[in-house]
Amino acid sequence: MQKHQHGGDIYTAPCRIDFSANLNPLGLPQRVAEAACEGVRRSVNYPDVCCSDLRSALSEKEGVPADRIICGNGAAELIFSLAAAEKPRKALLVSPGFAEYEQALAVNGCDIRYYELREERGFAVGEDYVTCLTDDLDIIFLCNPNNPTGVQIPHILLERILAVCRERNIRMVLDVCFLDFLDQPQESDFNALLQENPQLFLLKAFTKTYAMAGLRLGYGLCADKVLLARMELIRQPWSVSIPAQMAGVAALKETGYVEKARQLIRRERAILREKLTELGFTVYDGKANFLFFRGPAGLSEKCRAQGILIRDCANYRGLGSGYYRIAVRTHEENEELIRVITL
Amino acid sequence: MQKHQHGGDIYTAPCRIDFSANLNPLGLPQRVAEAACEGVRRSVNYPDVCCSDLRSALSEKEGVPADRIICGNGAAELIFSLAAAEKPRKALLVSPGFAEYEQALAVNGCDIRYYELREERGFAVGEDYVTCLTDDLDIIFLCNPNNPTGVQIPHILLERILAVCRERNIRMVLDVCFLDFLDQPQESDFNALLQENPQLFLLKAFTKTYAMAGLRLGYGLCADKVLLARMELIRQPWSVSIPAQMAGVAALKETGYVEKARQLIRRERAILREKLTELGFTVYDGKANFLFFRGPAGLSEKCRAQGILIRDCANYRGLGSGYYRIAVRTHEENEELIRVITL
Repeated sequence: MQKHQHGGDIYTAPCRIDFSANLNPLGLPQRVAEAACEGVRRSVNYPDVCCSDLRSALSEKEGVPADRIICGNGAAELIFSLAAAEKPRKALLVSPGFAEYEQALAVNGCDIRYYELREERGFAVGEDYVTCLTDDLDIIFLCNPNNPTGVQIPHILLERILAVCRERNIRMVLDVCFLDFLDQPQESDFNALLQENPQLFLLKAFTKTYAMAGLRLGYGLCADKVLLARMELIRQPWSVSIPAQMAGVAALKETGYVEKARQLIRRERAILREKLTELGFTVYDGKANFLFFRGPAGLSEKCRAQGILIRDCANYRGLGSGYYRIAVRTHEENEELIRVITL
Repeated sequence: MQKHQHGGDIYTAPCRIDFSANLNPLGLPQRVAEAACEGVRRSVNYPDVCCSDLRSALSEKEGVPADRIICGNGAAELIFSLAAAEKPRKALLVSPGFAEYEQALAVNGCDIRYYELREERGFAVGEDYVTCLTDDLDIIFLCNPNNPTGVQIPHILLERILAVCRERNIRMVLDVCFLDFLDQPQESDFNALLQENPQLFLLKAFTKTYAMAGLRLGYGLCADKVLLARMELIRQPWSVSIPAQMAGVAALKETGYVEKARQLIRRERAILREKLTELGFTVYDGKANFLFFRGPAGLSEKCRAQGILIRDCANYRGLGSGYYRIAVRTHEENEELIRVITL
């Protein structure tokens, strides 16, 4: 098994604008950066192993008791901790999907089945997904909206999946890292269902919403306290740095910033989509802060030569050459992308 | 299994001076803090998954090729990744010792034996340690100087242990996180032995040397590239934050600061040791930036009531009530500690 290639690699070649990572186009809020720098000054101490201030702020924001919240060094760390803590034997993943689910499960010896998203169905998760939830499964991962396709799973279908998972004792990991960028995020909120569904694990991140990928901060919500305790045991106590904890607390106060980003993305996503369609590309029905499309081979190399990074999705399981993902960025940046694509 | 209590917990009660974490008393160097804050500003990007700049700087400092260096979210993360990657069945630990070795091994299903350090032998690792290196062992952890005792293992004994580990194919993890605080750190350097001993894993940290515990940065040196690749697979790709990577590169330029700390610690350790001995406490022969001693029961509570944290070692395996560890700090801080102890 090899490590996967990811978006956001600005290090192996020069890059002016990065469309390959799906981060908030407004950038890191000034007050969040200041809090992180204050965190640097306090870093002569060890971090709070309990992330008490952060979990308390999250508890208020999410309406979930603090003892059902686990913080991590990015949501990615929690994916690996969860797989290591559960040691599931059989999993169902969606293909194409975020590569870390597969890696975390595989290194823990898990046998993986795939639900294949079909192009002719717009890469949507269909009703037939429910019939794949067989008794032998220990865990499923779903990302809503899905990465890299951006396609949302209908709320009513997710509720049905959740009910079957409860009935069959299947751990359901629902990754909602991109939820904040939906037009109506609250409509897709599953927090209220945690209490009665201890097998549900909601995965969230600060990374995308607040454009702080380099600081590393994610969190999980789950009513299964035994699982959370196992996840804490399987990793070091000081996973979350002081700058990340303090940035997180500051970020949760930036409600205006998130709303502003949501409006920008709604507007710009529509424009980008139209322009890409005009160029003859097939743009799928993505809902989040990124767009997934099919275009000519060699597009990512062409962009890279102009200092622009887009996500070539050829290395996703279930995809091939010609599939791309781009983040929705500011108007000027998006125009520059279109200019470079049409060169 | 429960999570362990650690030093450096300044969060559960008010604290003026923290003697419970063994960090450089000179604090975080200004240029390192500035580099970390520059890292915060760049955190709208994902971290470099390869830690290329940092590993290149470490390669130069350590005289070890970059492909034998692995960076982690603190050395503690590497302890857990190593245990998860190796899945050893039988380990030998030293007691008392750093609690994370035990936790990382136990959660990975490892059976642990203990080499007990005896008070009547000054808590030293003796020649008889070699006879404990039986064929059934997969891994050993040694910390030099040991934590919490501060006692150093003679270089010649470590070389014998290394030879037996090579012969018997036992992974030897040598944690040298406190090496920089020895009077003659280069005399205890094992880097030159890595090449011919692929079973040797050297664990190092920025945490203590540069007082940056809150930023999380450690690294490992090992010539076994298959092991390093397995460790990378078993964890997320973005473990080391951008502030930590940039702080690390800046820290490696601070050679004068480390030498100054070494001199301060040498001077202050002698004074502290004398004063504690005058108070009737038994102070053991510690060599690093901390002192381990036996004193009256209730001493940590007494200090805590005055806003001073010391490490009560009662919860270490093999120790009981009345054992304490204190960091060597600045002259004024050390005087304040002695004043509070004698209240």
